[in-house]
Amino acid sequence: MTLTYRATGVDIGRAEDALARVRERIKRTKRPEVIGDVGQFGGLFASPGADTVLVATTDGVGTKLELARLLDRHEVVGADLVHHCVNDALAMGAEPLFFLDYFATARLEPPIFERVVGAMADACARCGVALLGGETAEMPGMYAPGTYDLAGFLVGAVSRAKILGPERVREGDGLVGIPSSGLHTNGFSLAREIVSRVAATEGKSLLDVLSAPRPELEGLALGETLVASHRPYLREFRALRDAVELHAIAHLTGGGWEGNLPRALPDGLGAAVSRSSWVVPPLFTLLGELGGVSEEERFDTWNMGIGLVVAVARGDEAAALRAVPDAVALGRVERAAPGRRVRLV
Amino acid sequence: MTLTYRATGVDIGRAEDALARVRERIKRTKRPEVIGDVGQFGGLFASPGADTVLVATTDGVGTKLELARLLDRHEVVGADLVHHCVNDALAMGAEPLFFLDYFATARLEPPIFERVVGAMADACARCGVALLGGETAEMPGMYAPGTYDLAGFLVGAVSRAKILGPERVREGDGLVGIPSSGLHTNGFSLAREIVSRVAATEGKSLLDVLSAPRPELEGLALGETLVASHRPYLREFRALRDAVELHAIAHLTGGGWEGNLPRALPDGLGAAVSRSSWVVPPLFTLLGELGGVSEEERFDTWNMGIGLVVAVARGDEAAALRAVPDAVALGRVERAAPGRRVRLV
Repeated sequence: MTLTYRATGVDIGRAEDALARVRERIKRTKRPEVIGDVGQFGGLFASPGADTVLVATTDGVGTKLELARLLDRHEVVGADLVHHCVNDALAMGAEPLFFLDYFATARLEPPIFERVVGAMADACARCGVALLGGETAEMPGMYAPGTYDLAGFLVGAVSRAKILGPERVREGDGLVGIPSSGLHTNGFSLAREIVSRVAATEGKSLLDVLSAPRPELEGLALGETLVASHRPYLREFRALRDAVELHAIAHLTGGGWEGNLPRALPDGLGAAVSRSSWVVPPLFTLLGELGGVSEEERFDTWNMGIGLVVAVARGDEAAALRAVPDAVALGRVERAAPGRRVRLV
Repeated sequence: MTLTYRATGVDIGRAEDALARVRERIKRTKRPEVIGDVGQFGGLFASPGADTVLVATTDGVGTKLELARLLDRHEVVGADLVHHCVNDALAMGAEPLFFLDYFATARLEPPIFERVVGAMADACARCGVALLGGETAEMPGMYAPGTYDLAGFLVGAVSRAKILGPERVREGDGLVGIPSSGLHTNGFSLAREIVSRVAATEGKSLLDVLSAPRPELEGLALGETLVASHRPYLREFRALRDAVELHAIAHLTGGGWEGNLPRALPDGLGAAVSRSSWVVPPLFTLLGELGGVSEEERFDTWNMGIGLVVAVARGDEAAALRAVPDAVALGRVERAAPGRRVRLV
């Protein structure tokens, strides 16, 4: 028998073809600090200076990948990966600097790769982030045909005096929420399970359930609403930083409210959040009702319509709401008893 | 029907259990530049200063994952992920600073996670790299039961005047090779295919083929030899940097010799490499013969026993060999005709 690497399903030429399709869009993400070109063993980026602190974050997009694949919306997950990382960095007070991606699949399909990584590059360009490098892995047999996984890695910088976090937060601080665009990139395993059960109960295909116009969603389909892109909060973060005394930011991702908001608060403090301060978008209500998901479980899994919660100095709430037009006053930081720290009132 | 996120296969509590098992080992990787603790939205690391350049790299370990799983050697891939990234960073002349990991699986098994990420933390500690953060993703349905994928991200730093790369390389530079410990983390799809075909031909299980002692391997088994850990070259890199004028380094990974060595050379130059300067380890010969893989294909896929090729100033070869006891003089940088740029002589 005679074997070549290509015969086993790994084709370096296919990887080169895939990369060639996105090279120009990656070039457009170049910042002045970037040194040299893509293709070296590591990406080079001039260090921002010893008075600053680097903020590094890594994320995936979870099983939203499966939905994007089913609905042929590969661009969404590429952009989401960048937006998720950008939001995690700004939650620490940082401006994003550069991004790297990991793309793994059974067999690289250059047209799909182009759509995913091209959208990633475009999202980087919009956020002013250099796409500094990436790894593309073909792993025949490890991924099911047509599936791929993504991981993103982002480095940002913040001057040492401006790092946000729990240590800045005081009892009585105002909590300001900024709306999400939907599930963002979390809670999709629950959403997909609900869709699967509806399909089984109604004897329909997944695609039928996802594509049917829904009166609850003003005639939009569930699928279309589920694959809305993860909203990036860079512009809002900058506006808030200029307008108010920012203390901490929670990015509401996996684990929902209780899983994330306490990460922005010091021990002993919790959040009193007024449930009437915003209207939960119909997507969450529809999913919750279709799945019989309890109210607490919904808030422990999904962002329920608020993607970012910002703690600002007491008295700065009005300025925060002026700085971000769609922001809402959620409530306040309060003393917390042991146990759950987010109190919905 | 009533659904919880846990019922869909995603369990935040399991993720916390998994993390708790490795927290102490992660703490031991802390460097003075690290600020705060794990668990924030991003990891914080004091910037190394404006005269330096950050080097960022991302890697996976490919289908070596499948072999490690089959042979219950999960520690190997954790360490490999770190070593692969460290070697890519030093190929640019950089000292590694911090590392983040992405761990994705269908259902998180805390004991397996502990072995993989614990080994990752230990490898970071040995290389002096801070394990600054990570993402753990449970994606039911996306990965086959028991499988997981890994991606690693590393940032290092190099002073601007000491960046290594093709622009430093001159015709006549010496090429010095440092042995690999085996396949490292590349070419496993080909190796696995060969093992599968042998198993099919001989009517044996994969595990039988992998576990049988082989006279060609001095009585060692193929499996044991295949899962040898990816050798890190940090100590050798430091010794060379102190001893000689380093110009460029090629880390021989996916794509073998022709896929990597030219990345360290400027346009118009190639490498003349003496095949008799080192003995190809029996693992490569055995695999090549079992699979009927041509000599060229072997060198285009595997490292063939040399993991790092270093270009040093003409006349510095002897000093390089003294600095790294097991290094070999491979050959020289020469003018190259169009086409293949690595000439095995």
